[in-house]
Amino acid sequence: MSVNTFGRVLRFTTWGESHGPALGAVVDGCPPGLSISEEAIQPFLDARKPGTSKFTTQRREADLVKILSGTFEGKTTGTPISLLIENTDQRSKDYSEVAKAYRPGHADYAYDAKYGFRDYRGGGRSSARETAARVAAGAVARLVIPEVTIIGYVSEIGGDRIDHAAFDAEQIGQNPFFCPDAAAAARWEALVDDARKDGSSLGAVVECVATGVPAGWGAPIYGKLDADLAAAMMGINAVKGVEIGDGFAAAALRGEQNADPMRPGADGPEFLANHAGGIAGGITTGQPVVVRVAFKPTSSILIPQETITREGEATELVTKGRHDPCVGIRGTPVVEAMMALVLADHKLLHRAQCG
Amino acid sequence: MSVNTFGRVLRFTTWGESHGPALGAVVDGCPPGLSISEEAIQPFLDARKPGTSKFTTQRREADLVKILSGTFEGKTTGTPISLLIENTDQRSKDYSEVAKAYRPGHADYAYDAKYGFRDYRGGGRSSARETAARVAAGAVARLVIPEVTIIGYVSEIGGDRIDHAAFDAEQIGQNPFFCPDAAAAARWEALVDDARKDGSSLGAVVECVATGVPAGWGAPIYGKLDADLAAAMMGINAVKGVEIGDGFAAAALRGEQNADPMRPGADGPEFLANHAGGIAGGITTGQPVVVRVAFKPTSSILIPQETITREGEATELVTKGRHDPCVGIRGTPVVEAMMALVLADHKLLHRAQCG
Amino acid sequence: MSVNTFGRVLRFTTWGESHGPALGAVVDGCPPGLSISEEAIQPFLDARKPGTSKFTTQRREADLVKILSGTFEGKTTGTPISLLIENTDQRSKDYSEVAKAYRPGHADYAYDAKYGFRDYRGGGRSSARETAARVAAGAVARLVIPEVTIIGYVSEIGGDRIDHAAFDAEQIGQNPFFCPDAAAAARWEALVDDARKDGSSLGAVVECVATGVPAGWGAPIYGKLDADLAAAMMGINAVKGVEIGDGFAAAALRGEQNADPMRPGADGPEFLANHAGGIAGGITTGQPVVVRVAFKPTSSILIPQETITREGEATELVTKGRHDPCVGIRGTPVVEAMMALVLADHKLLHRAQCG
Amino acid sequence: MSVNTFGRVLRFTTWGESHGPALGAVVDGCPPGLSISEEAIQPFLDARKPGTSKFTTQRREADLVKILSGTFEGKTTGTPISLLIENTDQRSKDYSEVAKAYRPGHADYAYDAKYGFRDYRGGGRSSARETAARVAAGAVARLVIPEVTIIGYVSEIGGDRIDHAAFDAEQIGQNPFFCPDAAAAARWEALVDDARKDGSSLGAVVECVATGVPAGWGAPIYGKLDADLAAAMMGINAVKGVEIGDGFAAAALRGEQNADPMRPGADGPEFLANHAGGIAGGITTGQPVVVRVAFKPTSSILIPQETITREGEATELVTKGRHDPCVGIRGTPVVEAMMALVLADHKLLHRAQCG
Repeated sequence: MSVNTFGRVLRFTTWGESHGPALGAVVDGCPPGLSISEEAIQPFLDARKPGTSKFTTQRREADLVKILSGTFEGKTTGTPISLLIENTDQRSKDYSEVAKAYRPGHADYAYDAKYGFRDYRGGGRSSARETAARVAAGAVARLVIPEVTIIGYVSEIGGDRIDHAAFDAEQIGQNPFFCPDAAAAARWEALVDDARKDGSSLGAVVECVATGVPAGWGAPIYGKLDADLAAAMMGINAVKGVEIGDGFAAAALRGEQNADPMRPGADGPEFLANHAGGIAGGITTGQPVVVRVAFKPTSSILIPQETITREGEATELVTKGRHDPCVGIRGTPVVEAMMALVLADHKLLHRAQCG
Repeated sequence: MSVNTFGRVLRFTTWGESHGPALGAVVDGCPPGLSISEEAIQPFLDARKPGTSKFTTQRREADLVKILSGTFEGKTTGTPISLLIENTDQRSKDYSEVAKAYRPGHADYAYDAKYGFRDYRGGGRSSARETAARVAAGAVARLVIPEVTIIGYVSEIGGDRIDHAAFDAEQIGQNPFFCPDAAAAARWEALVDDARKDGSSLGAVVECVATGVPAGWGAPIYGKLDADLAAAMMGINAVKGVEIGDGFAAAALRGEQNADPMRPGADGPEFLANHAGGIAGGITTGQPVVVRVAFKPTSSILIPQETITREGEATELVTKGRHDPCVGIRGTPVVEAMMALVLADHKLLHRAQCG
Repeated sequence: MSVNTFGRVLRFTTWGESHGPALGAVVDGCPPGLSISEEAIQPFLDARKPGTSKFTTQRREADLVKILSGTFEGKTTGTPISLLIENTDQRSKDYSEVAKAYRPGHADYAYDAKYGFRDYRGGGRSSARETAARVAAGAVARLVIPEVTIIGYVSEIGGDRIDHAAFDAEQIGQNPFFCPDAAAAARWEALVDDARKDGSSLGAVVECVATGVPAGWGAPIYGKLDADLAAAMMGINAVKGVEIGDGFAAAALRGEQNADPMRPGADGPEFLANHAGGIAGGITTGQPVVVRVAFKPTSSILIPQETITREGEATELVTKGRHDPCVGIRGTPVVEAMMALVLADHKLLHRAQCG
Repeated sequence: MSVNTFGRVLRFTTWGESHGPALGAVVDGCPPGLSISEEAIQPFLDARKPGTSKFTTQRREADLVKILSGTFEGKTTGTPISLLIENTDQRSKDYSEVAKAYRPGHADYAYDAKYGFRDYRGGGRSSARETAARVAAGAVARLVIPEVTIIGYVSEIGGDRIDHAAFDAEQIGQNPFFCPDAAAAARWEALVDDARKDGSSLGAVVECVATGVPAGWGAPIYGKLDADLAAAMMGINAVKGVEIGDGFAAAALRGEQNADPMRPGADGPEFLANHAGGIAGGITTGQPVVVRVAFKPTSSILIPQETITREGEATELVTKGRHDPCVGIRGTPVVEAMMALVLADHKLLHRAQCG
């Protein structure tokens, strides 16, 4: 019932705050004998790392990962893998304003209501900085599912969508937006820059597709793969919506429009469509697993907002400091990591019950 | 790691198939001393019960609930509450076609891929009939949170939306659609009837609002209330999307448009908006908790679809039998039940940690 | 965190009270495709059934098990298996005395302290009658581990021990004590009968040995097989001690006396001793898994004892009614069932992580 | 289902190996607002620390604990508390012999059977060094239960028992054996020294008593406090037996000898005996909670033993290196820590369900 642990068979626990000395993850249940190294994990952290362009927060963190346990001679041993990431740029600043008043849209008021007080430095535990630990854990999860390829990308910023017909996987790593459509990426430069200059922020949609997932992963009723994916994605900071396959669009369709008919194929069935996003009854069908995730605009903005102090007095707040103008961008590697963690978990769960 | 169990502190386990002798739920962790009776649970099952109008399946089930344990002299004892619902209308029919071929959009192929075979009678465990057990469990959960009012309703069928300005809670129980907008309900009669006559089906969106939830329920990171709600809702049969508050619409907004500013109010803060749907950082803010759930159109339709047999041969299938033309309608009491179960669970979890 | 659920991957939940309409177990995570029937489960319940000799309680229960879900055409489907046992002999009696005062040695006072009130009829949920559900669940677990043979027997009653040199497995089923030593069984007839006639009761020790368990089941640190066995056994009604292998006797030995040296054998190592009881570091070694379990004497006796009423007044109580003079005897099938459940669970857990 | 996590509501996860860079624990679910500091945790680690007398291993570890998260301004915040202990004396030595052959009585063979290979340096994850992390976690747990006093002590070494009549709590800290009986402590000096000089080792029994525990903690059936204690204790390295209250001795008693009669007392009932060890039906009675734990003699001895190599060849092994001649001694703070963790967990669990 651990609220800082995720997973069923492959489980990970994260710890750490935005402005503490470090943060980390402990991954438990990883199969033994997998090749592992800090070098193999680091690129995933680098993808999420802040400060790489003007479109992300200017906080500078090397985000170097250290493996403290669970490996021997370059292989996983089957015991818990402890991953540590030091915080190095907890800039000394004046938190007196944030300590005193609640930032609207942030967890400040909710944390105080729950715990009676809070670590207000950079949001404490509620900071998106915690997602670095998930990305590290996700890199371990990928080792468990070498048969699966996971590609995440931003499909929409501030309401401006990519053209899926122009999808080019090569593009994703070549712009600061994880955008697979070169034309959209070009438009977003101005869009995000404008928001940043206005002291405002933008929402985004991230899509993530996993191919190579065999049919049969997942489980009925309360262990459904799509339910676990929904929890995984909705648990990412700033996420407000999750869709599998066609998602809300399916609600407007008729049955025959939403069908995924099958024909005999070379290796098992060939599906004529994938409205379902690769999951039926909570179990994979062998088609690509498709998830869409909605990120709200960053709550930290330079535009003054009404709020109250801890004592309940009216005040106005401007959230200074270093913030992402669009958290959805750096959310992309986190979405990928959670996809990897859920799939790896279900691979092992499937093996437990079905051999 | 039980895949047929849901919850953290208040947990429930369901069992049963569409065409077995019965189905049921075991609710564990319920506080002692709460007044309980079969009569108090039955109305929630009646709301979900099939065969009440021509807009739902014609299967006739009394869905009478029996309490087999966990109560004494009309009160919960704190021990597991076993709830039993007998299946009475497992119409004897010829399943040879369904046994032989996979119904597109159903879990048939996925179950076979996972388990090697399946109980094909009415979908077995993958049937939405299982949700009767959730509704019964949800009725118990409501006893745990008397301070909370939960209202679910259908806001959209086949792409036709209600007018939120015309929202009238009284209407919800007065039409066969759980529709709070009389004009929309009138339109839907024709819409659903047409789909039914065409042998087709329609998708729907269900909204659910919980008021009276205090600030402070929920938990950080992997025990977030919104993540648990997302899992709860995505785990309902035919659900493909979940939103909290503004959901995907928030992704198109700027930070200042999506803000929920606060002012001093009579009892704690008064919020000027509720884009967040009552949850920040995974923890309630005291505002109404708002969830939107997308149901795909029923996969069982009378329109022939291409598919394959268990042996991998091409064939065509028409899903005869008794089906809901729009599963989203009867999904409404299920959404409410899951909302109740998640909130009750988090009330107890909050009490565990924060006293 | 379900307190009425046991297991990690193969999990079961029990429900029901001594004097309710029925009790049951829901087994989740069972692999699909195993042959199962009520007839295969019933013999295990018959072994635990009351009223079979004058050395057990005279309550008459047929203890017929019904399978309500999770099977199809004689095989497990991989979905939850719901097992139901009706209570038929909840003899109508006067409970006013038990309702009013706390039976010493029973859970009466503790339940009232926890829950504020209790179902006092026959002990409610705290009755050993609940173990019928475990035995049914254990019969399912045995299907999962056909390679393992589990033999439980009573090795000591009222301080009178069997002669292990006279161990004869054939004897176990041929006397009312699950005693493998014919001479001891003969002595126990008089011993138990005397206690019964005196209105007193006797403690017992049950031993249980599992052979055929391969090396490698179990898990480090908090998922140790021996830790899980300890929890499983200590959770049985009236149990006050658990030993693995030599147990407390090992505490009096020197290292070289307690060693289990190895030699090359035909199939893996041949061990020269089994002080460890088949488990090292929480993981099986391939030797027989050996558990010893101490049952206290039944707390219900006809000898008057000082106690207090619910209102805190002094009183004296005699526990009338139908009771086992030595609960350890009928505890034997329960110990076997829990052994089966723990081993089956760890077989699946091992498969999850190590393939 | 995390095998390196323990607890229900207050949960902790440990990680780390004997010869890795560090080991640690992550404690989740701790209530907010408790005063905490490294200085408050350190004394418990110091009590377990190696190298403090000639009766323990000569490995030198400062065992300094660092708190990396979950606290703010000297108080717990309710978020995960990450505790780190660096390994400083991983003496460079030749492990080729241990790498090649299995040490009898150790987990070497079992780990290889499970995982296919192992970290053989000092036993890797199976080393008792991991218990340092539990002791740190236990120190946090004590903050949660200020009303409880926990006293652990060694009651028997190599079969030589203390005289309980001579019990003097003051003595426990004044000898290297955690022995409450000065005379026994004096005898043990020679006993343990002889074993050490012989290159042998001794078993021990540790007793642990918790006073101040209110009635009502614990839970029925599979969440029994005694079952959780049994798992907690049996999971400690080298433990082979666990007793609650009179334990195995109760098995030799008659019902009236084992009774714990009650009388009206100043604050609730006054019990006339405590055979039950403070727990009935899995729930506390308000009497002291009493646990006895059997430690086998250390398996590492200088006396040659038959064993096999990884390739299955016969060989002989002498376990050189630094070892405790009697692991039970340093097991005492670990037993205390696990008692604290189980009680704190059940305090919160009780609060969850019963307010």
